[in-house]
Amino acid sequence: MLRSPATMGSSAFALALALVLAACVTSAERKCLLSGSWRSDTGCRMVVSVLSKDGRFSGSYLPGPAAGNSEILTSPLEGSQQDARLVPHPTFSFIVHWQLRDSDTTRTTAFLGQCYTGTNGEETLHALWLLREAADSPTEDWKATRVGTSIFTRIK
Amino acid sequence: MLRSPATMGSSAFALALALVLAACVTSAERKCLLSGSWRSDTGCRMVVSVLSKDGRFSGSYLPGPAAGNSEILTSPLEGSQQDARLVPHPTFSFIVHWQLRDSDTTRTTAFLGQCYTGTNGEETLHALWLLREAADSPTEDWKATRVGTSIFTRIK
Amino acid sequence: MLRSPATMGSSAFALALALVLAACVTSAERKCLLSGSWRSDTGCRMVVSVLSKDGRFSGSYLPGPAAGNSEILTSPLEGSQQDARLVPHPTFSFIVHWQLRDSDTTRTTAFLGQCYTGTNGEETLHALWLLREAADSPTEDWKATRVGTSIFTRIK
Amino acid sequence: MLRSPATMGSSAFALALALVLAACVTSAERKCLLSGSWRSDTGCRMVVSVLSKDGRFSGSYLPGPAAGNSEILTSPLEGSQQDARLVPHPTFSFIVHWQLRDSDTTRTTAFLGQCYTGTNGEETLHALWLLREAADSPTEDWKATRVGTSIFTRIK
Repeated sequence: MLRSPATMGSSAFALALALVLAACVTSAERKCLLSGSWRSDTGCRMVVSVLSKDGRFSGSYLPGPAAGNSEILTSPLEGSQQDARLVPHPTFSFIVHWQLRDSDTTRTTAFLGQCYTGTNGEETLHALWLLREAADSPTEDWKATRVGTSIFTRIK
Repeated sequence: MLRSPATMGSSAFALALALVLAACVTSAERKCLLSGSWRSDTGCRMVVSVLSKDGRFSGSYLPGPAAGNSEILTSPLEGSQQDARLVPHPTFSFIVHWQLRDSDTTRTTAFLGQCYTGTNGEETLHALWLLREAADSPTEDWKATRVGTSIFTRIK
Repeated sequence: MLRSPATMGSSAFALALALVLAACVTSAERKCLLSGSWRSDTGCRMVVSVLSKDGRFSGSYLPGPAAGNSEILTSPLEGSQQDARLVPHPTFSFIVHWQLRDSDTTRTTAFLGQCYTGTNGEETLHALWLLREAADSPTEDWKATRVGTSIFTRIK
Repeated sequence: MLRSPATMGSSAFALALALVLAACVTSAERKCLLSGSWRSDTGCRMVVSVLSKDGRFSGSYLPGPAAGNSEILTSPLEGSQQDARLVPHPTFSFIVHWQLRDSDTTRTTAFLGQCYTGTNGEETLHALWLLREAADSPTEDWKATRVGTSIFTRIK
């Protein structure tokens, strides 16, 4: 296809503008998306996949040296982030099914939290969680659930 | 195809046996699977899909007359059941993203529980939940999360 | 002092009225005070002292047959009720320090709840609790706390 | 009373010894006792009285600049510390009855935690809490309770 010089200039400008916009969007999109690697305040690591269009993700939770959880193996997680890219502090939720060494106990943790970006641009995940260990019977159910918080910072 | 009477009898027996086994399996499988309709102790209803092979399900959470939650619209849920069909009291987890009337607040609930079958064969779901309402800023984060329990019984 | 019959009649009426009012007030006051004996939905019993003027009480938590908690001994509790006698559904809080058989582990439960009077006059205590078992070190702290609910009904 | 120089010397030595011992005991006793002033990770301050012989204390919870809780007034707290002076990381529990500006809503928080001494001698309080706001009726009870964590460091 033949173009006049004027058209070519206009195309080049449009391309440059698109690249600049893409860079801005990429930068903005990276803020407070769960995709990537995170370290918890108990020394565990978490790797989260790229988010799908509707905000879903999968990933892995890995034991850390500080956690003293040598019994935990790399465990799968699944969840989603709400209003990702639309709000400054999007909420998220994910479930981890724990893979345990030398144990067939069923343990599941539900994390519910929010991603905050600090004034320095650092992202922090604040989450509360419930951890359930399968009870043997209804009379044991009352003691099946633990509660706590986790704070995650991004590993660069 | 022609069959000898003996073969036919054997086939008929095999079919009958298969039906009996299927009935038993169906009966056993129905116990403490989340698939179906449930009513919570606060009067809400929950409809859960057939479980996938790996225990996943989707469904809806519906407001109930007793809940006094006229602000809540039918809301989607997703989750999974662990060791379904393999253990008598399987654990489960699911997330509800609340659809609210006249509000664009983001609210999410994570349920974590276990299904128990009573001596009368009645199934009951015992769950703890965390409910997070998006905080406007990190300094508001401390008050973002509610906690509670729900007990569900099957609607027949 | 001499009185005319009319005055005496008026006095007698006032006395009768006062007695009726006192009975009503007594009946109303008894509603949703924690003083007395309660049974939890897990089969434990709780005995609560008469409330002090500022709403404080002490008492005991006793293991029950249904609880399967033969390891628990009678354990002291202390707490207070807010706005007792002033509001229809007063809130309360109390702490139990568990006395355990064959164990010197420190376990404490904080109960936080509210007393509701049903249409039939039955009182019910709805409470959420946190149970902490002393962690050996900060790295074990994350798993020290359990959460759950208890519902108590009055033992008559 | 007259004393020989020897007796006087001995008395002076005994006094000096007593002072040294007192200093040691004081130093040891100060570790992970709740008595004193603390700052929470949300910027609130807490002042705790000297512990009684059986570990009880009272005190005040004060709003802080970072908390954005200008609605909170100085609020009384009461609680106790278990095994104070006997174990390295004693547990504690206390209840705060919130005094609110321009509000007669009843709000109560139960804190349940443990005191840890770091390798640098710094004391840190790790606590989970439940916060209940009085519900108007049983059908509102499900949403009455919030949950979270607080970390306190000593103000010197």
